[in-house]
Amino acid sequence: MTRGLFFEELEQGARFQSPGITVTEESVIRFALEWDMQPFHVDKEAAKSSIFGSLISSGLQTILLTYRLYFQLGVLDGTALAGLGIDNVRFRHPVRPGNTIRVNAEVTELRPTRQPDRGVIVWNLEAVNQDAEIVLTMTLSALIARRQ
Amino acid sequence: MTRGLFFEELEQGARFQSPGITVTEESVIRFALEWDMQPFHVDKEAAKSSIFGSLISSGLQTILLTYRLYFQLGVLDGTALAGLGIDNVRFRHPVRPGNTIRVNAEVTELRPTRQPDRGVIVWNLEAVNQDAEIVLTMTLSALIARRQ
Repeated sequence: MTRGLFFEELEQGARFQSPGITVTEESVIRFALEWDMQPFHVDKEAAKSSIFGSLISSGLQTILLTYRLYFQLGVLDGTALAGLGIDNVRFRHPVRPGNTIRVNAEVTELRPTRQPDRGVIVWNLEAVNQDAEIVLTMTLSALIARRQ
Repeated sequence: MTRGLFFEELEQGARFQSPGITVTEESVIRFALEWDMQPFHVDKEAAKSSIFGSLISSGLQTILLTYRLYFQLGVLDGTALAGLGIDNVRFRHPVRPGNTIRVNAEVTELRPTRQPDRGVIVWNLEAVNQDAEIVLTMTLSALIARRQ
């Protein structure tokens, strides 16, 4: 049971827009406590004297949220075979508690592989906040199923 | 209070080796349930017919663990100012429940910026499993404090 799209059903330039998610202070601190416990991610007082001026989310948290919102689109649900890599991750604007982000996803490359049952797909993902500022960009590469 | 190293105290080619972490089946499924719920990350039965043949961790989980083990080194504890980006993430070998990974970190670039209080550091991170197979490689760029 597959509700996602196969290689042949996608085309370069196809665009999708995700739903949003609001980043809470609780989630910023909890995430950083486990994965990236730097003062400007967990300590509101220390964050005042950081170069950000107040608490911001870990870049890793923003990567995860960006991926999760992309995944929520379901475009490759059941047709994604394997992740290959991630490139060009850029933290372009701080994400602060209370911000709401969503993701614009665009297919930038589709190429067949030697194996006839699969192909490579490359996505450009762009996370934007409620003020339409781009907070993160990254490129995802994955193997995707071709119709048999 | 800073126990990390400043820009001037690091040099290109410096290497560090992290402690290890064992990836449990519980953590693989729990992580994927929240962030990347694909059959080969959460369903042992479905994973048998995936191209991996059995359950594997989400690549995002491996990224987080790689970063976390690197962070555990404490090299930039209190001297890291901001993350800039991540490049060249490659999922080179599946991580399966029961595997233990650790991280080799190498400074590959150090360059001053126009602002005299900071510089850019670039790390190559390599996560290896208990059989010395490289499971993930990635490059981290960050702003780091210079001695005033």
